[in-house]
Amino acid sequence: MSSPKSNKPKIVNGPGGYILQDVPHLIDYLPDLPTYPNPLQDNPAYSVVKQYFVDSDDSVPEKIVVHKDGPRGIHFRRAGPRQKVYFDSDEVHACIVTCGGLCPGLNTVIREIVSSLSCMYGVNRILGIDGGYRGFYAKNTIPLESKVVNDIHKRGGTILGTSRGGHDTAKIVDSIQDRGINQVYIIGGDGTQRGASVIFEEIRRRGLKVAVVGIPKTIDNDIPVIDRSFGFDTAVEEAQRAINAAHVEAESNENGIGFVKLMGRYSGFIAMYATLASRDVDCCLIPESPFYLEGEGGLLEFIERRLKENGHMVIVLAEGAGQDLMSKSMESNTLEDASGNKLLKDVGLWLSQSIKDHFKKNKMEMNLKYIDPTYMIRAVPSNASDNVYCSLLAQSAVHGAMAGYTGYTSGLVNGRQTYIPYYRITEKQNHVVITDRMWARLLSSTNQPSFLGPKDIPEEKKELPVTPLPDGEKCDAVVDIPPVTKEVTK
Amino acid sequence: MSSPKSNKPKIVNGPGGYILQDVPHLIDYLPDLPTYPNPLQDNPAYSVVKQYFVDSDDSVPEKIVVHKDGPRGIHFRRAGPRQKVYFDSDEVHACIVTCGGLCPGLNTVIREIVSSLSCMYGVNRILGIDGGYRGFYAKNTIPLESKVVNDIHKRGGTILGTSRGGHDTAKIVDSIQDRGINQVYIIGGDGTQRGASVIFEEIRRRGLKVAVVGIPKTIDNDIPVIDRSFGFDTAVEEAQRAINAAHVEAESNENGIGFVKLMGRYSGFIAMYATLASRDVDCCLIPESPFYLEGEGGLLEFIERRLKENGHMVIVLAEGAGQDLMSKSMESNTLEDASGNKLLKDVGLWLSQSIKDHFKKNKMEMNLKYIDPTYMIRAVPSNASDNVYCSLLAQSAVHGAMAGYTGYTSGLVNGRQTYIPYYRITEKQNHVVITDRMWARLLSSTNQPSFLGPKDIPEEKKELPVTPLPDGEKCDAVVDIPPVTKEVTK
Amino acid sequence: MSSPKSNKPKIVNGPGGYILQDVPHLIDYLPDLPTYPNPLQDNPAYSVVKQYFVDSDDSVPEKIVVHKDGPRGIHFRRAGPRQKVYFDSDEVHACIVTCGGLCPGLNTVIREIVSSLSCMYGVNRILGIDGGYRGFYAKNTIPLESKVVNDIHKRGGTILGTSRGGHDTAKIVDSIQDRGINQVYIIGGDGTQRGASVIFEEIRRRGLKVAVVGIPKTIDNDIPVIDRSFGFDTAVEEAQRAINAAHVEAESNENGIGFVKLMGRYSGFIAMYATLASRDVDCCLIPESPFYLEGEGGLLEFIERRLKENGHMVIVLAEGAGQDLMSKSMESNTLEDASGNKLLKDVGLWLSQSIKDHFKKNKMEMNLKYIDPTYMIRAVPSNASDNVYCSLLAQSAVHGAMAGYTGYTSGLVNGRQTYIPYYRITEKQNHVVITDRMWARLLSSTNQPSFLGPKDIPEEKKELPVTPLPDGEKCDAVVDIPPVTKEVTK
Amino acid sequence: MSSPKSNKPKIVNGPGGYILQDVPHLIDYLPDLPTYPNPLQDNPAYSVVKQYFVDSDDSVPEKIVVHKDGPRGIHFRRAGPRQKVYFDSDEVHACIVTCGGLCPGLNTVIREIVSSLSCMYGVNRILGIDGGYRGFYAKNTIPLESKVVNDIHKRGGTILGTSRGGHDTAKIVDSIQDRGINQVYIIGGDGTQRGASVIFEEIRRRGLKVAVVGIPKTIDNDIPVIDRSFGFDTAVEEAQRAINAAHVEAESNENGIGFVKLMGRYSGFIAMYATLASRDVDCCLIPESPFYLEGEGGLLEFIERRLKENGHMVIVLAEGAGQDLMSKSMESNTLEDASGNKLLKDVGLWLSQSIKDHFKKNKMEMNLKYIDPTYMIRAVPSNASDNVYCSLLAQSAVHGAMAGYTGYTSGLVNGRQTYIPYYRITEKQNHVVITDRMWARLLSSTNQPSFLGPKDIPEEKKELPVTPLPDGEKCDAVVDIPPVTKEVTK
Repeated sequence: MSSPKSNKPKIVNGPGGYILQDVPHLIDYLPDLPTYPNPLQDNPAYSVVKQYFVDSDDSVPEKIVVHKDGPRGIHFRRAGPRQKVYFDSDEVHACIVTCGGLCPGLNTVIREIVSSLSCMYGVNRILGIDGGYRGFYAKNTIPLESKVVNDIHKRGGTILGTSRGGHDTAKIVDSIQDRGINQVYIIGGDGTQRGASVIFEEIRRRGLKVAVVGIPKTIDNDIPVIDRSFGFDTAVEEAQRAINAAHVEAESNENGIGFVKLMGRYSGFIAMYATLASRDVDCCLIPESPFYLEGEGGLLEFIERRLKENGHMVIVLAEGAGQDLMSKSMESNTLEDASGNKLLKDVGLWLSQSIKDHFKKNKMEMNLKYIDPTYMIRAVPSNASDNVYCSLLAQSAVHGAMAGYTGYTSGLVNGRQTYIPYYRITEKQNHVVITDRMWARLLSSTNQPSFLGPKDIPEEKKELPVTPLPDGEKCDAVVDIPPVTKEVTK
Repeated sequence: MSSPKSNKPKIVNGPGGYILQDVPHLIDYLPDLPTYPNPLQDNPAYSVVKQYFVDSDDSVPEKIVVHKDGPRGIHFRRAGPRQKVYFDSDEVHACIVTCGGLCPGLNTVIREIVSSLSCMYGVNRILGIDGGYRGFYAKNTIPLESKVVNDIHKRGGTILGTSRGGHDTAKIVDSIQDRGINQVYIIGGDGTQRGASVIFEEIRRRGLKVAVVGIPKTIDNDIPVIDRSFGFDTAVEEAQRAINAAHVEAESNENGIGFVKLMGRYSGFIAMYATLASRDVDCCLIPESPFYLEGEGGLLEFIERRLKENGHMVIVLAEGAGQDLMSKSMESNTLEDASGNKLLKDVGLWLSQSIKDHFKKNKMEMNLKYIDPTYMIRAVPSNASDNVYCSLLAQSAVHGAMAGYTGYTSGLVNGRQTYIPYYRITEKQNHVVITDRMWARLLSSTNQPSFLGPKDIPEEKKELPVTPLPDGEKCDAVVDIPPVTKEVTK
Repeated sequence: MSSPKSNKPKIVNGPGGYILQDVPHLIDYLPDLPTYPNPLQDNPAYSVVKQYFVDSDDSVPEKIVVHKDGPRGIHFRRAGPRQKVYFDSDEVHACIVTCGGLCPGLNTVIREIVSSLSCMYGVNRILGIDGGYRGFYAKNTIPLESKVVNDIHKRGGTILGTSRGGHDTAKIVDSIQDRGINQVYIIGGDGTQRGASVIFEEIRRRGLKVAVVGIPKTIDNDIPVIDRSFGFDTAVEEAQRAINAAHVEAESNENGIGFVKLMGRYSGFIAMYATLASRDVDCCLIPESPFYLEGEGGLLEFIERRLKENGHMVIVLAEGAGQDLMSKSMESNTLEDASGNKLLKDVGLWLSQSIKDHFKKNKMEMNLKYIDPTYMIRAVPSNASDNVYCSLLAQSAVHGAMAGYTGYTSGLVNGRQTYIPYYRITEKQNHVVITDRMWARLLSSTNQPSFLGPKDIPEEKKELPVTPLPDGEKCDAVVDIPPVTKEVTK
Repeated sequence: MSSPKSNKPKIVNGPGGYILQDVPHLIDYLPDLPTYPNPLQDNPAYSVVKQYFVDSDDSVPEKIVVHKDGPRGIHFRRAGPRQKVYFDSDEVHACIVTCGGLCPGLNTVIREIVSSLSCMYGVNRILGIDGGYRGFYAKNTIPLESKVVNDIHKRGGTILGTSRGGHDTAKIVDSIQDRGINQVYIIGGDGTQRGASVIFEEIRRRGLKVAVVGIPKTIDNDIPVIDRSFGFDTAVEEAQRAINAAHVEAESNENGIGFVKLMGRYSGFIAMYATLASRDVDCCLIPESPFYLEGEGGLLEFIERRLKENGHMVIVLAEGAGQDLMSKSMESNTLEDASGNKLLKDVGLWLSQSIKDHFKKNKMEMNLKYIDPTYMIRAVPSNASDNVYCSLLAQSAVHGAMAGYTGYTSGLVNGRQTYIPYYRITEKQNHVVITDRMWARLLSSTNQPSFLGPKDIPEEKKELPVTPLPDGEKCDAVVDIPPVTKEVTK
């Protein structure tokens, strides 16, 4: 029954250059599905809500800074409840899985998927998959109901457990089919979403009435298209503690350096926003902005200069920054490989050691204090702002599945909940654009050198579509990801 | 020299129903002003930034949920630095004033206006006006420079002091003229912005080269057009403490009621978002949603029922809710007016007393604990998210003034910094729309009755343009404000 | 079987003026009880602990500042596990009740009584009494085991519920006897401890083998003999938030007054310590230090002066301060009694209104912001220091009951856990001694007037034995309580 | 003029075995010094304080758990203001220096020394020594007055800067003499206090009228005699964050281990109290309690078992624990020394790597998350409890110097401020006594094995005098320090 053209993006064109990048629907390959009136119509909470159901024509533009005469560009389908649903409440058997590293808000998303399904749609059968993708086939499930999840948003972590990898398409879809699950909610990063995409394809191939829904999770904010990822706001807030401590240590010691390593394997958003929010940082190093240590214009020279001027400084490093420098340095030090290397793979430890070595060699006094708050940040409960955000995200995900959409991720685009086709989420990564204004603001705030000349800036990047954080402007861009650095799910 | 048509809105029309609601510019009435190259061109931090200057055609749509064939609608001019500026750095003499109640982030905005002027544009003469509008003519000024403001974003309140009222147009503009000030940054609520609008008109009438810039401040988030006001996020976060405490008190006492009064004189955004973030609230009362105490379907009946079911409950009340009920109740109790009334004007004290009286009369045991965290919320420093937001807002304000724009407020619209003409900010107030989805979400989360039937909902409201919070969707609307309830500046 | 002299204090005298105020023991009236070896002897955790059991001669002096030739004075029996116990593990049937207002640490005490009984002594039958004293006869009980209480110390409030009053000796002892309970743990303030004393007497009268153990709870720290009450440290910490907010509000407004009402009905310890810890307070008013409003040397004059000098000030008021002034003021305003009074009974509201009236009458501008953080303080979870303290207190209570002691409260005296006879806890209240050094330190820190002359100081007070907080010195004293102000349990 | 017996302890004996270990006084070697009435007598804040001055006979016992017939034992001189002082206010020229690592409360102590000198004693000349001991001769001084220090207690770190080492007795005393300084306040750890002792001896040798006062600082709480060191309470509180995060990470991952390294080079007090306060810890490793990795009864076996039982665990490690194991392991890995070792010297990194290696070798899945919050703990401002404590400590130090005492440290003994001769502070270190009850409580709370048999416990330790934390009981002991592990000041 599955369409031979199933993998082709669904595109709708309109006047003035309007493009809608639509998401799949169960009737794409199960055209005869019956529909039901949305049970929200009888919900007393919604009795006075006149505009509750989303108009089927509603869409949200990806690009929002426009010119009077410019084309209208790409749009996404607006999320929200529909007049008709494709699942009877008693028929629904949903499951939820969390994959990858911890991120503030996981429990809030879980809680709200359960609440939305049970309170809004009267669904009673909801399973938690234990410990990530492999929980589909290697573990018992966890029955979820409103009472169980009532207070979990006040705790960090995920009550379902999580893991990396473990994606085995056949086993997972077999498990979904065997258990009679027909709504699958998958919370995880870009690797996980690619896995969700493959699961969706297999389910479509088998012609199953199963909605596959992704909810993008990345504390690093490196998922494209969406405004920001949940937990990011909490992470930036919590990072302030580490930067404050680094600042105090730096100020209290002669030639004190407070050195904070933050998350950000491929993109430096947390480091950049934490720096902008704190204002105590003298140097922010991110993967997108190359730097070098030795010689004129290098990092070590800058550190020496700043210490001479101010007597202390604070450095913030995203964990993905300087990886190339560390690799080179490691190669030439093969003797220590046996066990020393295991630890040195941490770029924060490596760079702080390199700075210490440099000052020791030059017989200059210096006091470096190294702080790695990574696990203290990941494990906090989400703040109020992320709590509201996670709740709306989860509700949108549920509304979409009930309405028969599938093969999509729920995501905030320009402040509106939308349904985004998988390929837009997984094809690229979101990066800080160092030729843009937000990074310039950072440079202006830290007064650090750019460590590179105009010729180092790749020309082609500036043409890419940009996606903003809600507070920012043109602050980041979707760029091609070098294949070697990708986290692979399977 | 001033144009006879000065008060008319500047409107630009384009194809597809495109409308630009533009802001005034100094050359509107001083057409021969010279321009200068933007000094940011020589700023090393911006040397690699290729897209730094905003294209003069950039605009941002007010309405973002669109239909394939719909009109393009109203747009605002995008904020940001321009290639040419209308002030020489040495010529600028800026002043900053803060008016109205405290709000988290005031100091961050002050800090960033000073930093932007001095670090980006090389401006040296910046004055703080002491204690609100009346500081222009009744007090000494406070010289501001980068060093003075360096750490102030870590403190709550405003280092400039603030006050209500004190607006005297002639005295203020005389003071501006006498001191040779040519950039005026006015941070305050809708009353203050109306005051700014009048100052701008007088300055234009006198033909002065003075840019008048508003930065909207309202902890209640009741300013229209913009996504959210600064400090709102921090306020919602801080309100969680009070709700948590109310929940603990309620749960630990038999028939315990935790009763929290939050800010919100004309709009219930803080109460609504704090409720949605917390999930511990059983009843949220806001000015937009009428309710009544006695009889079937009334609040007291609901409280009795919820206590019987759960043994405890949490009530959140926005300070503007139930004002009509309190007024009526007061009238019939004229004997107590002499001094008792002064305290009873607080709706939180009045309503909690009414609940106590009801239970006492009915001889039912009940333990109500009343919490008013208002001043503890207003006085906290802004959180990381608001710190970044305040910084961008302040930078946008400065870029606009340097570029010669005047008579505008700087504001975030759909995640983008824009310049908004005063009339859009002051003509209406932003309210929670109780016929819309965000309020339905709240009702669904608290499971409280709507206290009103569909016939109570005014029909006309649903046609109004809606402005979102970045996390929300269609969650609020601009509605006409009844004139009696307005805070008047003069 | 009960001894006719049962009510007489057990006193042991020794050389050098040594006095031991001992606590009752089950064998006082049940002389033939069998003993058992303490099961801790076989506990692996204690296998290397050589000095685990407390020497039966160990005692702790009440007075610790001594002279070379002075008498040794009053001592208390040291708490801790004994070699022999008077209960077989299988025989124990314990119950726990919490009475009175909330206080940080209640859940930690409950948790640790359960843990100590079950993990150290292998006790399986432990009941929670629901909702205070009346729960003994009017409600169902709550079965408690280690798993149930495992995480409760991270939450504020009490999982058992609490109430005031409800003490009915006969019904309570009947309930104890009927249920076969033989260890009763009573957590509450001085009224509650008096109730515990009466229960103990009745149990002794009936000749029951039931240990009655009190754990003193008072957020106000007004229980005599002991160093400090649990939760006090947390309360002082949490009060800092309110004082900080008051300070910010005061500084940001012209003639701003930040006015904070804190707990302390009969004693001003929280207000005093919060003031000393904060250093932002200009005036601290407590029940022990009389003051007056009008005229020379009065509070209003001081406020005017401080505002003139500094432009702002912070006032901290303990809720019991100024009660006499308020009563007098109320009498002369009889017209408002009907309902206004209900609210005016709050001294914070009354005093802040009086200050406002004064300034209004004198046409002086002034901005008073009133903060009452009471319920936000009471409801927080205990901090780390109180967590450890509560744990040791609970363990001591359990060790004593197992060892056959009864009719005692567990309490910290000069840094050591002791068993204190009820009469020492209930006969008096702990008050701030305003003729002593800690209060002088406060006056020196706030620079406030003493509002009274040397002649106002009652002579006799200075002779009283003084009990310290661990951090302090001679900071407080046990004084006779005027009977009218006592909270009565029954 | 200096006495030939100057180095001999001053001992006073009394009846009943009473011993006073007194502190030196300026008149010991300058017998003809004039005295002055204490200016506090005229301080209005003290006008009603009748017992303000400390009786010259007041002393405080070191040992507080006593027997009816036992000897009275060692006592210390009680701290506090004296009727007569040995410095005229105008004559005083004080200096303050902070040495060693950061500790919460340093700024509060500095603030209060300045406040006490200036507000209580009218002293105007107070210098801050910049950057530790070497600041006496290698740097400029920082003038201190009340206004400068007014808000510093709200910040972490030390405004004076600090460093390790730099002690050069001759240069320091020359500097003191040259500058005419006559009161020296030295805040630092045991090494620093030994340095203070040497400075005192040299000053006595030179016959200078200079009071040398130590204020003990050690975040590890490893200074003997005193109840607890300032900042310890704050550190234990702050450590809870890291343990909470470790717990969340452990619970959310399969076979998750949350591993937290805390401070404690020679003593495990922070680890022990943080574990007792948190209750989420499965294994607490401290320097005082030896353990081994491999084989039966070893740490690795315990980890495997706990993971099998619970699926996750939390380990807390004091940085001084397992040093011997790490050293042995290092020796056999000499190849990596060149640079790998530098990092491996961190026992937390080494032990977590060893655990990972073990599980990898045995092909067991395990997820270890390593958290080192050291610098985030050290840098926080002191909490309310430490703020009060630091204030009293500083006041006591100042009262003593004004009264002519010298060569002492100010310290809290059994809840009372005392003056302690240097030799009692520097001769030994305070350690957790693993044969005592507090450690047994910990073992009982974590349910971890003792990793050693009774035969491993050195016999002689149990005889040592014990000093308590205020909340504890017999929880620690003064033991001889092996000379190799001492931090040496010069």
